[in-house]
Amino acid sequence: MPAIPSSVLLLILSLSVAPAPTRTATPDEGMWTFDNPPKEKLAETYGFQVDDAWLDHVRLSSVRVSDGGSASFVSKNGLVLTNHHVASTAIQKLSSEGHDLVASGFYAPTVADELPCTDLELNVLDSIEDVTARVLGAVKEGATEAEARLQRSAEIARISKEENERTGLRCDVVPLYRGGVYTLYRYKKYTDVRLVFAPAAQTAFFGGDPDNFNFPRYDLDMALLRAYENGEPLRTPHHLQLSQGGVKEGDLVFVSGNPGSTGRLNTMSQLAYLRDHRYPLLLDYLHHRRDLLTQFSARGAEEARRAKDGLFSIDNSIKALTGYLESLKDPAAMERKGAEERELRARVAADAELSATVGDPWQAIADAQAVGAEIGERAFFSSIHGSQLFAKARTIVRLTAEVEKPNDERLPEYRDTSLDSLELGLFSAAPIYADLEEFSIAGSLQLMIEKLGADDPLVHTALGGSPAREAAARLVGGTHLADPGFRHQLVDGGRTAVEASDDTMIRLALALDPTSRELRKRSEDEVSSVESSAGEKIARARFAIHGTSVYPDATFTLRLSYGVVKGFETGGYNVPYKTTISGLYERATAFDFQPPYELDPLWAQRRSHVNPDTPLNFVCTADIIGGNSGSPVVDREGRLVGLIFDGNIQSLVNRFVYDETVARAVAVDTRGILEALQNVYQADRVVAELLQQ
Amino acid sequence: MPAIPSSVLLLILSLSVAPAPTRTATPDEGMWTFDNPPKEKLAETYGFQVDDAWLDHVRLSSVRVSDGGSASFVSKNGLVLTNHHVASTAIQKLSSEGHDLVASGFYAPTVADELPCTDLELNVLDSIEDVTARVLGAVKEGATEAEARLQRSAEIARISKEENERTGLRCDVVPLYRGGVYTLYRYKKYTDVRLVFAPAAQTAFFGGDPDNFNFPRYDLDMALLRAYENGEPLRTPHHLQLSQGGVKEGDLVFVSGNPGSTGRLNTMSQLAYLRDHRYPLLLDYLHHRRDLLTQFSARGAEEARRAKDGLFSIDNSIKALTGYLESLKDPAAMERKGAEERELRARVAADAELSATVGDPWQAIADAQAVGAEIGERAFFSSIHGSQLFAKARTIVRLTAEVEKPNDERLPEYRDTSLDSLELGLFSAAPIYADLEEFSIAGSLQLMIEKLGADDPLVHTALGGSPAREAAARLVGGTHLADPGFRHQLVDGGRTAVEASDDTMIRLALALDPTSRELRKRSEDEVSSVESSAGEKIARARFAIHGTSVYPDATFTLRLSYGVVKGFETGGYNVPYKTTISGLYERATAFDFQPPYELDPLWAQRRSHVNPDTPLNFVCTADIIGGNSGSPVVDREGRLVGLIFDGNIQSLVNRFVYDETVARAVAVDTRGILEALQNVYQADRVVAELLQQ
Repeated sequence: MPAIPSSVLLLILSLSVAPAPTRTATPDEGMWTFDNPPKEKLAETYGFQVDDAWLDHVRLSSVRVSDGGSASFVSKNGLVLTNHHVASTAIQKLSSEGHDLVASGFYAPTVADELPCTDLELNVLDSIEDVTARVLGAVKEGATEAEARLQRSAEIARISKEENERTGLRCDVVPLYRGGVYTLYRYKKYTDVRLVFAPAAQTAFFGGDPDNFNFPRYDLDMALLRAYENGEPLRTPHHLQLSQGGVKEGDLVFVSGNPGSTGRLNTMSQLAYLRDHRYPLLLDYLHHRRDLLTQFSARGAEEARRAKDGLFSIDNSIKALTGYLESLKDPAAMERKGAEERELRARVAADAELSATVGDPWQAIADAQAVGAEIGERAFFSSIHGSQLFAKARTIVRLTAEVEKPNDERLPEYRDTSLDSLELGLFSAAPIYADLEEFSIAGSLQLMIEKLGADDPLVHTALGGSPAREAAARLVGGTHLADPGFRHQLVDGGRTAVEASDDTMIRLALALDPTSRELRKRSEDEVSSVESSAGEKIARARFAIHGTSVYPDATFTLRLSYGVVKGFETGGYNVPYKTTISGLYERATAFDFQPPYELDPLWAQRRSHVNPDTPLNFVCTADIIGGNSGSPVVDREGRLVGLIFDGNIQSLVNRFVYDETVARAVAVDTRGILEALQNVYQADRVVAELLQQ
Repeated sequence: MPAIPSSVLLLILSLSVAPAPTRTATPDEGMWTFDNPPKEKLAETYGFQVDDAWLDHVRLSSVRVSDGGSASFVSKNGLVLTNHHVASTAIQKLSSEGHDLVASGFYAPTVADELPCTDLELNVLDSIEDVTARVLGAVKEGATEAEARLQRSAEIARISKEENERTGLRCDVVPLYRGGVYTLYRYKKYTDVRLVFAPAAQTAFFGGDPDNFNFPRYDLDMALLRAYENGEPLRTPHHLQLSQGGVKEGDLVFVSGNPGSTGRLNTMSQLAYLRDHRYPLLLDYLHHRRDLLTQFSARGAEEARRAKDGLFSIDNSIKALTGYLESLKDPAAMERKGAEERELRARVAADAELSATVGDPWQAIADAQAVGAEIGERAFFSSIHGSQLFAKARTIVRLTAEVEKPNDERLPEYRDTSLDSLELGLFSAAPIYADLEEFSIAGSLQLMIEKLGADDPLVHTALGGSPAREAAARLVGGTHLADPGFRHQLVDGGRTAVEASDDTMIRLALALDPTSRELRKRSEDEVSSVESSAGEKIARARFAIHGTSVYPDATFTLRLSYGVVKGFETGGYNVPYKTTISGLYERATAFDFQPPYELDPLWAQRRSHVNPDTPLNFVCTADIIGGNSGSPVVDREGRLVGLIFDGNIQSLVNRFVYDETVARAVAVDTRGILEALQNVYQADRVVAELLQQ
C-alpha cells in the first residue's frame, strides 16, 4: 500500500464523502487525533499509560510529506525517514535519461552531496486548537444549507489566514466528525528537502505489483531525506531514536502518521454509490490508463523509465480500489454495516426527542447520492486526466481568476494560506515529457468519447472536431507550459494575460472551466452540503447514543494508531509476524530471479557480509490506510522499531469496517534498515548519525 | 498430504464407493494405468513420445509400500526412497523409550548397521493382465445382483490363487472402471526391508500440521530403506538415477505411484451421502480421537512419544476430510458435477437404444445411499476404533473362521493370496502400549454411547453394563493379545480354540462379530452391489458417448500422472514453483523457532556447510492424491527429479473434480535431498551409492 501520489491522492480523497465518527471501537481499532488519544483503552488493554510528554515527543518527531505520505525525524540534524515510494516522485524528478536514481538508488557520501529535491514539502504538527465555536458561529440564522456551507467556508478561510499571519505557520482548519468538530492544525513547514539515501527501486519494491498489498514481504521500502533551514541541516531536538532490541510477537506498538481517507461511517446509500458508480468509473479509468502506459513503456527503455512511476501508482490504485470494491460486494461485511445502520436508525426512532432533532438524514443522503450518480461521470471528464500540462493549465486559469476575489470567497485550494504550497508544485522545474503527454492525452480523450459519447459538449470542446490523436498532437504542440518560466509569466500577467493567451492548453482549460465549475458547484450544493449537514445529524445521534469515545474518519492529518505485532492465517497458511533478510534471497531464488523478483546486484555481491537472520519486515494490527505510508512505528518508550509501508490485501476492507483477525499493517523493521545501511550500502556516516544518542 | 497410514487407509478407502471412469480428461488430468498411458495427449500437448521401454523402466523402478504409500528404487542395490511419513510407522516400531528414532533421525554408517523393519512389505508391479472376460464369464445366467457379486468374487479369488501358485508372485485382481474392466496385477513382494536413513521428524515434517497441505514448504520428507532378498541387498537393475540438473518452471514431469482413492465420477446422490453422512461421521470420530490423544500426550514425554504417530495421522486425516467436505459444499464445484451428470443423463435419455440398455442407474444408486445412511453409523460402531488389541482380536476371530471355508467363499482379505501380508501385520512384534490402549478404548466406547445411545445392543455388548472406563480397564486387563506368541497360539488352535478362549478382547470380538458381519453383508448386498451394477451401466453410457480415452478412479494401484512444474497464485499472492534451503532457515527464524517451527539442531550446526540456494521443495500440476506419498517424480528421460510428499490445500477438491488452476502436488527436490545427505548428514556412503551410475 504505497502512499497515494499527489495526483491520485486527489482522486482517492474525493472518494471519502464526508468524514464520520465511528461506532464504539473494537480492540486496536482507531486513528486517534493527538488531542484525544484512547488513554483508557491503552491502560485497560495493555497497561500502558500514555502521557503528554510521550505524545508531544511522538507528534513533534512525526512528519507529513506533501507527496501523500508520512515520515519521521530520526536524528537531531533533520534526517527524515520515509518510504522509497513516498519519496519516489521526488527521486524521479532528480533523475534524467541515463541517470535514473529510481533504478540505481542513491547515497550521498557527505552532507555536501545531498541532493535538493524539487517541490517537496514537509509538515510538522506544531499545535491543535478547537475552533468549532467560531466556525459554527459564523453561520447566520435562517441560512440555507448552501449558504451555511459558504459561511462556514469563509470563516475557515479567515481563521487560516489570520493564524498564518499571526504565527508564520501553515494553518489548516480541518472538519472532523462530519463537521461536528472543527480543528485548527498549525504546521511548521519545510521546503528545502534533500535526498540523502535511497535503495534501488528493485530492493525498495522487491516483488513489484504482485507482492504489493501482500505479506510475507521482503522490501527495503525506505528513503532518507534531510530537512534544511536557511541552507543548514534543520536542528531537530525532537526525533525518534532507533530501537536496538526491535519487536517480538505480541509487542504493543504505535503508528504515528497521516491516514488519507476512510469511510467507516458512510451510510448504506453512500456505500452503494461507491460500489455502483464511483469505484467502477475510477477503475475503468485506471485500467485504461494502465494499458496506455504499458503500451508507452513498450516503446523503449527511456519510455519505460518515464512511465514507471506513473505505472507504479496506477497498479497500486487499481489493487486498492479493487479491494475496496470487493469489500463493498462482500455480503458479510455489508450485512455488518447494514445491521449497524438499522440499529442506529431504530434507536433514533425509539427516542422521541432525538427523533425530532435529527429527522431522517439517511434519506437526505440517499437522495444526494442520486445526484452524484447523475453528474459524476461528466464531472470526472471535465478534466484531462493523466496530463501534467493540462493540470498546470487548469491551475493557472483558476489561480489567476480566484486571486481577484476576496480570500474567503475563493475555492479553498486558492486561498492565501495554500498558495505557497500550490506554487511550489506549479513552478516546479521537474521535467515534463512531450511524448508521454501526447500519448496520455490522446488516450484520455479517447476514453472521454467512449464514456460520454461523441455528441457531448465536453467532447466537442476538448477535441475541437479532430480525432483524439490529432487533438492531442495539436494540444501538446501548441503549448509552452513545459517551461516553468512561461508559467511564471502567465501567472504574473494575471487573468487578463491568461484569457488573452493563445497557448493551446490554456485555451482548453479556459474552455472546459465553466462546465467544470458548474458541475463542481452542483456537487457541492446538492451532494456535499447535504452529506455534510445530514452527516452532522447522524453524528449527533451517534454521540447521544454511544458517547464521545470515538475517533473521526481519516483526513490526511496526524493520527495515532496502535496494535500488536502479530502474524495471521490466510487460506489455512500460517504467516509469521516477520520476515528476515534470508527470505529476500530465498524469494528471488525461488522465482529464478525473474521480474519482479530480480535481486539487486549489490545485494548479491554483499550477501556474505549480511546477517541473514536480521528481521526485514513485520506486521502488526495497527489501524492504518493509504497516507500512512512512511509512518514511524514506535514502541512503549517512543523508540523507532519500524517503518509502515503497506497493508496486506485483507486490510483493504478496513476502509469501511475495521477487522483485526487478518488485516495487518506492514512495516520495514528498523533492524533490517540498520543492517542494510551498514553491511550492504556501507553508509557509515548515516549509520553513525542514526545511532548517535 | 502424508500417506494414509494403514488403519486410516481402510477408513479412507472405504469412502471411495466404487471406482468410476471419469469424463474426458482436461490437460494434465488423470491417474493412468500403465497399460493405457495417455500417449496421444502427451505427444500433442508436450511433444513427448512415451514408449514401452520408458514405461517398463519407470514401472519396475516404482515401489508400493504396505503402510499406504509409494516409493522407488534409487540404486542398483535395492535402495528405496520414500517419505519419512510413509516410513514413520516402521520407524516408530524400531523406537523405544529413550531411543526415539522418529524424533532423533537415523543413519546407518555401514550396511551392517541397517535396521530390519517390522512388518513392512514392498511391492513391485511385475505385470498386468486383463481378466475381464474370465471374471464376467463366471456370472451364471439369471443370477441376482447379490449372486452375481459372489460369483465374480469367487472367480477373482480363484484367479488370484492360481496365478500366485503358478508364478510365486502376489496376485491381485483389481476392478477398474466400476467393474467394466478387471485387471490382474502381479507383484514381486519384499518383506525384508531395512532402515538406512531418516532425518529427524522436525526436519521431515517442518511446520507440522499447520504447514501440512500447504506450500511454500520446507520439508525434507524422505527416508531411505533397503530391500533385501535372502539376507542380501536386493539387486535392482531397474532403478531411477538422480537427475543432477533438476527441474525448472514449465518442465514436463511424471509421477509414478499409487493414488489411494478418488471419487471423480460419484453420482450426485453418492456425493450427497458423503457430504451429509459419511464425512460428518468420520470427522466426529477423528475430532474425538484427536482430543483423546492430545489429553494422553499431555500426561508426559513418553506418552507424547507413544501418541505422536497417531496424532500425526489424525491431524492429517482431519485436514483432508475437512477439505473434501468443503469441496462438497462448494457451490461452484458441485454445480460443475451436477451439470456433468445432467448432461450425461440427458444424452442417455435422448438415445433410445442406450436408454433401453442402461435404464436409470442414477435412481438405483440414490436408493442405495438411503440404505447406506440408515446403517452407516451402526456399521461404524460395530468395531472398536483406535485399538490395536481389538483389531488383532477381530482379525484372529475372522481368520480362524474364514480359513475353514473354501478359498473363494471367504471375505476377500482372508483369501490364501492375502494371508502372507495379513499375517505379517498380525504377528508383528511392534509394541502395543496398554495405557494408550485403555485410554483409546474408553474414549471409543464413550463416543459409541453418545452416537448410538445407551440402549443400543452394540453398546450393551461392548460395555457389558459397566461405565466406559471400567469396561476399557477390564478389556485391556484381561487380554494377552499384546504378546505375539499368544496370537500365534490362538491362530494355531483354530476356530475351536478361539471360541473357547476366555481372553476378554477375543470374547468382545466374538460378541460383536455377528452384528458386524450382518451389517457388512447388508451394505454389500444393498449398497455396494447396487452401486457396482448401476455404476457399470453409467460407465457403459459414458464409454458410448465419450469413447475410451478415460482413466479409472484411483485404487491404490500403480498409476502414471503427469504435469508441469508451475507456481500458483492464492488470495492474490504469488507462490513460486520452488523453495530453497534458505527458506527453511527463514521460516524457522520468522517464527522465532516456536513449535512447529523449531530448527533441527544439526541443521543449525551445519548451516555454513550448506548451499542455501539449493532447491528444497517444488510443486507441479500432476494429478495425485493420498497414497501417492513417496512417489518418484521423473523427467522426460526417466531420471528422478523429486519425491512427492503432499498436495496443497487447493488440491483436496481433486478428490471429486480435477482443477489445475491452483491445485498442486508438492515434492521434495532431488537436489535438496543430495545437498542434505552430503552436507548436513555427511552420509557419504549413501551419496556415493545414489550417484553411482
